[in-house]
Amino acid sequence: MSELRHDPIQRRWVIIASERGRRPSDFSPKGPPAASTDAPCPLCGPGEVDHRAIARRHGPDGPVTVVPNRFPALQVEGEVDRRAVGPYDRAAGVGAHEVIVESPHHDHDLPDMSTGQVAEVLLSWRDRIVDLRRDVRLKYIQVFRNRGVEAGASLHHPHSQLVAIPVYPLRVQNELQAARQHFLAKERCIFCDVITFELEAGQRVVRVDDQFVTVCPYASRVPFEMVLMPRRHSHDFGRLSEGEALVLAEHLSHVIARMRRSLDGVGYNLVLLNKPNTHAVPKRPHQWESLADDWHWRLEILPRVTSLAGFEWGTGFYVNPTAPEDAAAHLRSIDLGNP
Amino acid sequence: MSELRHDPIQRRWVIIASERGRRPSDFSPKGPPAASTDAPCPLCGPGEVDHRAIARRHGPDGPVTVVPNRFPALQVEGEVDRRAVGPYDRAAGVGAHEVIVESPHHDHDLPDMSTGQVAEVLLSWRDRIVDLRRDVRLKYIQVFRNRGVEAGASLHHPHSQLVAIPVYPLRVQNELQAARQHFLAKERCIFCDVITFELEAGQRVVRVDDQFVTVCPYASRVPFEMVLMPRRHSHDFGRLSEGEALVLAEHLSHVIARMRRSLDGVGYNLVLLNKPNTHAVPKRPHQWESLADDWHWRLEILPRVTSLAGFEWGTGFYVNPTAPEDAAAHLRSIDLGNP
Repeated sequence: MSELRHDPIQRRWVIIASERGRRPSDFSPKGPPAASTDAPCPLCGPGEVDHRAIARRHGPDGPVTVVPNRFPALQVEGEVDRRAVGPYDRAAGVGAHEVIVESPHHDHDLPDMSTGQVAEVLLSWRDRIVDLRRDVRLKYIQVFRNRGVEAGASLHHPHSQLVAIPVYPLRVQNELQAARQHFLAKERCIFCDVITFELEAGQRVVRVDDQFVTVCPYASRVPFEMVLMPRRHSHDFGRLSEGEALVLAEHLSHVIARMRRSLDGVGYNLVLLNKPNTHAVPKRPHQWESLADDWHWRLEILPRVTSLAGFEWGTGFYVNPTAPEDAAAHLRSIDLGNP
Repeated sequence: MSELRHDPIQRRWVIIASERGRRPSDFSPKGPPAASTDAPCPLCGPGEVDHRAIARRHGPDGPVTVVPNRFPALQVEGEVDRRAVGPYDRAAGVGAHEVIVESPHHDHDLPDMSTGQVAEVLLSWRDRIVDLRRDVRLKYIQVFRNRGVEAGASLHHPHSQLVAIPVYPLRVQNELQAARQHFLAKERCIFCDVITFELEAGQRVVRVDDQFVTVCPYASRVPFEMVLMPRRHSHDFGRLSEGEALVLAEHLSHVIARMRRSLDGVGYNLVLLNKPNTHAVPKRPHQWESLADDWHWRLEILPRVTSLAGFEWGTGFYVNPTAPEDAAAHLRSIDLGNP
């Protein structure tokens, strides 16, 4: 079984997943190679995907099927078993690691799918989050999507992933604390304040509709970084309605199409930032009390156009060569009419 | 001039360095290409490097020359000018960005240099740190070294870099806070505790000599991550003596040679974690008071064998497929006798 380990200096957890294999390709300077186009795709149905399905929804392009990851970083069975190891902490690698097979069409990325299909993908995320958070061992559920070898994807077939972990990541704790302090001072959600500011400023907005807004954030870490947020305060992606999912699907496909066209089909990461699992906090420390008021879910989209180097590793301080105002203007200028 | 921008939710600073250029190659999916081997190397001697030298030391292989970065992320002149922009903060891109040209030999990496030459590189870092921190605008000085295209290096010629910034990075603040809390509770440096624990456990030690120790950290983020620390408590790399530099040079070259041999010449980042510039803190908030007691400098070495994907971006939570005990055993087993 894998193991979670905590660094008391960085206050950072890592998953040591030795049994995911120490394949020689993991250690090549270029990282794991792209899956050979000759090898059969493990996500092309029916076969194994059908056999191992945890959940399924039906979209206009075909089924959206959730399966366990074949090389899971975490295992569902077992106790969390937290204990000290010298100055460190460890816990058993308990959690969930699932793959959402988004479409039967091997070459489709999100913008190539019908809006209805993308909506079913989003609703599959929602369903799995709602199902998994009944497990009080699981404190945070991370949905993410790696597209392209440069974004860490080992499979080309369109898929997203979900990892549920038995501890709170530092990033989530830091965010909750910042959001809470803002709320205590102002009685307003800090994310709602950011949305108001960005809509008034306008220059970093990529797309806005009645329900959602996408901006290149003021303090973008990488060129063409985007964040998509619901305009109305909402702390829980688990409450997404079917109607909202359709609007979100159209919006998300649209901004990814603009990014892909701007950056020559670049690989990217998509990350859902959602509230932690409050069922898992029996005592509810103070920062969880007002979570419904001061937290706001969102999707981060990070094109992989630059590589992280020593300065970023050392300081957590990013150097971004493209102002987000320029990136947003460029993204808005793209003509999507001629594919 | 570039600009520093602060995200109040992530509490993270970024440098928006638009005038570093928005070269089309920045946006190719593979990142900037390696410098062509036909193009003349801008760091190969004498010419421009001599003309622009800020500082120089002389090693057995030739000079170690410090020059300003030709495309600096920050500018030396100007006021920091911090102010609010809606819910955000900004500051002028004031700071320093220097390149340490480590050797006249274009193809040498650290292990190819003589020990005396590596010592002069380390002493050049020290000298620049000591010189720059007299400038009270500069709150943190980051020395780092990117080796190989996969590590973000755009030049092959052996070089390190230094960036001095007018704000404290979140990582440094988090570390100071954790170290301070440990010291208040135990009256011991947490890093010294880690060294004691690792030397007793033994299984993660890559190399130990009288003065320094290198381990694969218990909570390693990436396969074969290493951290090199002085065994005797020391909070300030700026106090490195010439004698210590020679021992450190031999130790550092040795562990990098083992890593390079293990991983087929992989690219890597090397990051010096040193104390922040206390001259720049006139009021000295409490976490700086005992810095000399509770902080410990170190070098982090991160081979770039895996790529950061959506899960890591979303949570700051790393999945490492290789246990540090296995990595350290492998590194110790390497025979360096037959190059």
